[in-house]
Amino acid sequence: MVGAVIVKKGKIVSEGYHRCVGEDHAEQAALKKAGRKAAGATLFVNLEPCCHTGRTGPCTDAIIKAEIKRVVYSVKDPNPQVNGKGAKILKRAGVIVESGLLKKEALLLNDSYFGYHKNKRPYIILKTAQTLDGKIATITGDSNWISGPQSLKLAHRLRAEVDAVVVGMGTVRKDNPALTVRLAKGENPYRIVLSGSLDFPPRCRLLDNNSDYKTIVASTAKAIEKFSRTKRGRHSLIYWNLRTDDDGLPDLHDFVTKADAFGFRSLLVEGGGRVATSFLRAGLVDKYIAIIAPLLLGSGVCAVGDIAVRRLTDAISFDRYSFQKNGTDNLFIGYPKKTA
Amino acid sequence: MVGAVIVKKGKIVSEGYHRCVGEDHAEQAALKKAGRKAAGATLFVNLEPCCHTGRTGPCTDAIIKAEIKRVVYSVKDPNPQVNGKGAKILKRAGVIVESGLLKKEALLLNDSYFGYHKNKRPYIILKTAQTLDGKIATITGDSNWISGPQSLKLAHRLRAEVDAVVVGMGTVRKDNPALTVRLAKGENPYRIVLSGSLDFPPRCRLLDNNSDYKTIVASTAKAIEKFSRTKRGRHSLIYWNLRTDDDGLPDLHDFVTKADAFGFRSLLVEGGGRVATSFLRAGLVDKYIAIIAPLLLGSGVCAVGDIAVRRLTDAISFDRYSFQKNGTDNLFIGYPKKTA
Repeated sequence: MVGAVIVKKGKIVSEGYHRCVGEDHAEQAALKKAGRKAAGATLFVNLEPCCHTGRTGPCTDAIIKAEIKRVVYSVKDPNPQVNGKGAKILKRAGVIVESGLLKKEALLLNDSYFGYHKNKRPYIILKTAQTLDGKIATITGDSNWISGPQSLKLAHRLRAEVDAVVVGMGTVRKDNPALTVRLAKGENPYRIVLSGSLDFPPRCRLLDNNSDYKTIVASTAKAIEKFSRTKRGRHSLIYWNLRTDDDGLPDLHDFVTKADAFGFRSLLVEGGGRVATSFLRAGLVDKYIAIIAPLLLGSGVCAVGDIAVRRLTDAISFDRYSFQKNGTDNLFIGYPKKTA
Repeated sequence: MVGAVIVKKGKIVSEGYHRCVGEDHAEQAALKKAGRKAAGATLFVNLEPCCHTGRTGPCTDAIIKAEIKRVVYSVKDPNPQVNGKGAKILKRAGVIVESGLLKKEALLLNDSYFGYHKNKRPYIILKTAQTLDGKIATITGDSNWISGPQSLKLAHRLRAEVDAVVVGMGTVRKDNPALTVRLAKGENPYRIVLSGSLDFPPRCRLLDNNSDYKTIVASTAKAIEKFSRTKRGRHSLIYWNLRTDDDGLPDLHDFVTKADAFGFRSLLVEGGGRVATSFLRAGLVDKYIAIIAPLLLGSGVCAVGDIAVRRLTDAISFDRYSFQKNGTDNLFIGYPKKTA
């Protein structure tokens, strides 16, 4: 998410933003709108201008050609193809270059992009919808719907922003989710079922509604071998054979490696509790989103299971976090501290 | 909490508020400051002016004497000694009387007072300090401190605002709390230990630091009979013999009756989880306060235990509620819906 503003003599000449992959970068969009007026102006942008030809030409060329006098960007682009080279090219061409403006906000805005480049693996977002007392379902498994309508929309928007959504078999069996984007605009993500046992329910949207071939089954070699020989298992699914961990379950680090190799840059773990707990325990959650509904269930299914915390000082805490109103619910967004 | 403002020709003449029991009521405080200027003015106040002589004289007399032309109050005083009589007396004396201004806010400001008169029993506030995932301690019982410094201050302020604080034996044994007001201004409340078994720990602040004779032991007749014969049990404690419920535990409704008879108008239930759960299950919580710390514990002690919810539609929901920032924590305040 990049936006650019061109300013001259204290007045905004034009604005532009990067609409989607393949479209003009923010700088190009703003420059096109400004036309001749760009000459001698300052361009503000929240990411270092690119210097490589991708689906669009280098922004540095366009900036120099438009005779922009000064460029102020927020953060260096961590993409190895840029990573300071954009700024260097501009400086060499005589453009005044400054950086660091609203850096914190810029890092937050594209947390997933920066996280992907920093960790060199897909950025992992964990999302739960829980009650005030930390439950994601009643003791009988009832969970539709804990969160309010605005939070459901948010959940769909989150799906539209990631490459793939991950669920465990518990969720598949209980909720039979489609994992598509319906209450928001955007493309449907890939759908990954991550489970040691492939005991799909008789009617299963992830298997039956797979006309876009985006359902991925990530499991152990043994389980996949068996399931792929069944009638439904032969049906256009993508299989990821995962190594097993010490408990004989699919290894999460291997899962992330496979997701990376597949080209995924972001994953949204939607639950249920067991999958969420595994990712937390493995230290693989980059962003934690909890929708908190104003309800008390008492006994029920916990949002987070055993993550090996014994003392309060071992609790998972957060580098940055916020609580905010979201319709009838409250929304917690936090970045777990890395203890590695 | 009552405040009054005297206004004349669109300008504030004087303001006053009720400082504490025995001091001038808000109206009297404002009238004294206004002096002669009160004549012909409007008096705004968030509670119907009183008409009885308590520790101070009737406000209605003072208002009439000061020749106030018009009184605008927010809510009728539910105290049977007033309850509309104040307004009637003013009207008879020729004062223009209006009501309902900022009614919602006025009801919220003195929720405890209105609740006491509505329910005809002490107002019961339940306060928990929990993690994001609804835990009040780790699996090993570690809970000091889940909440941040500002929330601890809030906890002490809450104590100063009630007549008595209630805890169970689990909390006494684990935390050995003093239940005094230290991080805020105000009087120490009575301290009530509510428990079926009186197995106090060897060192126990509630028993040992009882120089103000404000520790109350509420238990079954059998347990009290036994404990009161021990050395520590003979030591200036107040005993409440409670009936037992079907499970042989102290009956909560009887407890509330005893608290009412003792003259208490408000109780703060501080925990632990078992006591909190009992009050919730009995439908005896008027106000629920949850301090939510940005931490994840996974397994641990749940803030709320079994409250007999099986379907989501049976969850405890709230009539009015808010989430707000409180230092490093988030603060939930809600009024449980009465299902009776």
